[in-house]
Amino acid sequence: MEVTIDRASFVVEYGSPLSLADAKAVMQAAEEFARERGWPMVIAVVDSACHLQLLQRMDQAQLGSIGVSRQKAETAVAFRRPTAVFQDALGQGGSHLRLLAMDNLMPLEGGLPLLRNGAVIGGIGVSGMQSDQDAQVAMAGAAALRDR
Amino acid sequence: MEVTIDRASFVVEYGSPLSLADAKAVMQAAEEFARERGWPMVIAVVDSACHLQLLQRMDQAQLGSIGVSRQKAETAVAFRRPTAVFQDALGQGGSHLRLLAMDNLMPLEGGLPLLRNGAVIGGIGVSGMQSDQDAQVAMAGAAALRDR
Amino acid sequence: MEVTIDRASFVVEYGSPLSLADAKAVMQAAEEFARERGWPMVIAVVDSACHLQLLQRMDQAQLGSIGVSRQKAETAVAFRRPTAVFQDALGQGGSHLRLLAMDNLMPLEGGLPLLRNGAVIGGIGVSGMQSDQDAQVAMAGAAALRDR
Amino acid sequence: MEVTIDRASFVVEYGSPLSLADAKAVMQAAEEFARERGWPMVIAVVDSACHLQLLQRMDQAQLGSIGVSRQKAETAVAFRRPTAVFQDALGQGGSHLRLLAMDNLMPLEGGLPLLRNGAVIGGIGVSGMQSDQDAQVAMAGAAALRDR
Repeated sequence: MEVTIDRASFVVEYGSPLSLADAKAVMQAAEEFARERGWPMVIAVVDSACHLQLLQRMDQAQLGSIGVSRQKAETAVAFRRPTAVFQDALGQGGSHLRLLAMDNLMPLEGGLPLLRNGAVIGGIGVSGMQSDQDAQVAMAGAAALRDR
Repeated sequence: MEVTIDRASFVVEYGSPLSLADAKAVMQAAEEFARERGWPMVIAVVDSACHLQLLQRMDQAQLGSIGVSRQKAETAVAFRRPTAVFQDALGQGGSHLRLLAMDNLMPLEGGLPLLRNGAVIGGIGVSGMQSDQDAQVAMAGAAALRDR
Repeated sequence: MEVTIDRASFVVEYGSPLSLADAKAVMQAAEEFARERGWPMVIAVVDSACHLQLLQRMDQAQLGSIGVSRQKAETAVAFRRPTAVFQDALGQGGSHLRLLAMDNLMPLEGGLPLLRNGAVIGGIGVSGMQSDQDAQVAMAGAAALRDR
Repeated sequence: MEVTIDRASFVVEYGSPLSLADAKAVMQAAEEFARERGWPMVIAVVDSACHLQLLQRMDQAQLGSIGVSRQKAETAVAFRRPTAVFQDALGQGGSHLRLLAMDNLMPLEGGLPLLRNGAVIGGIGVSGMQSDQDAQVAMAGAAALRDR
């Protein structure tokens, strides 16, 4: 089965950046989700221009995740797609390996664009456990924004 | 079928750098081609010494393409070949993976040398959509130079 | 006489980013101003989040100005002030020398925020001649935006 | 009058790192202090090993402060002193200018070590207004830790 890069995602536009209050709502939801499961995570929220808005490291989260969480969030905004798309593409091998040459793209699951009215207003990146767990926390954070 | 790296390309020489007027002609053709198709692109033109001559980001182009477009143009001049050659080589795997170790080589389709009288006078790099679409825009830009 | 950092400038807010059409108008005015005087310049325009929108190097502009023009534009947006403010402060010596430690601040005249309705929508940075000439070109570019 | 670098500060030891709960208490106090004054700040808290624990950008804080706030916090822990010490030293000129050669030292007021039982357990860095205002916010944050 071939991974299909969602062509619809190309029409997503950048919108106005999220507010700090938005970012706090995303962070709180993500942190609660992680805490309930005992997952020590680093969670980063960037605005619609890839600039850091809020970053939080939970106690005992692995130090290597500080940079990775931020890079996942930046990637999700810079390319307006979940970072899982790139992880899946890489998994197919062949010329997809070219993704490894890009120094501004982190092909690890756990980064998601944050959307409002169909526009990208920011991104969340999570790192600290297995990447599918990272992704679950990112989704919990992103869901909080949809309710605001 | 094996990808053949065109060894003939090694005899291409560097010529005098393109002028800003040349770069503007390339940019205009590339931008028009992209605009007609509704493709939001970042387009970079470098001279025969890899130095940036002109860079333009269309509205709503993905932010991650600013760096990538420039790196594609630089690669096309630095190695005097279309960047697609490197993407194809990478796709063959094996020792071709060594390309990933080169920090001044971007193995993504969409970068082309700009030629005049058989010599490299600059390069164009395009990023923003699928890489084959990027390559089409780069070709439209390069064609404009051939008519000057 | 003491240099006064304009405290009013702190209340300037970031607005929506300029469009490519805006950036082209700024660039055209700046280029014409420079061309009439025979000044070979590099001119960079960034958006309200410091991301490059348009960069143009005139024929025979010094190569060192590619990076500097961009850094001036980024500084003007990142700190929402003309870069001349920092050049003047540095000139006073003493603890103002601390500015030299900041790796994201270029204290050279020739960078200006671009304003619309009192909000920062981008920045222009010019480099290539003496910094007061750079600043004149930047002002010519910024003026074009005020008429749109 | 000569600035005296407090040599007593050299005997301060590193203690166990602060917790995320500690960092949140520091952040909340600092944010409230800034918000009451209408100062849009970026506030960073690092642990006793200089690693980022919590970073928050208030709405409309200048973008250039994201990096600077973090660097101030790191400096305060890396050298176990308020960053104002280095700003003052720099102001004396002479061989103090050597501080500018250090790429891991940000000599701008607004960074403070966070202490518990006389040991450094983290640091706070604030950027966004004049550096003396930044320092006031940092002190408000540090005070919150003393009450815990």
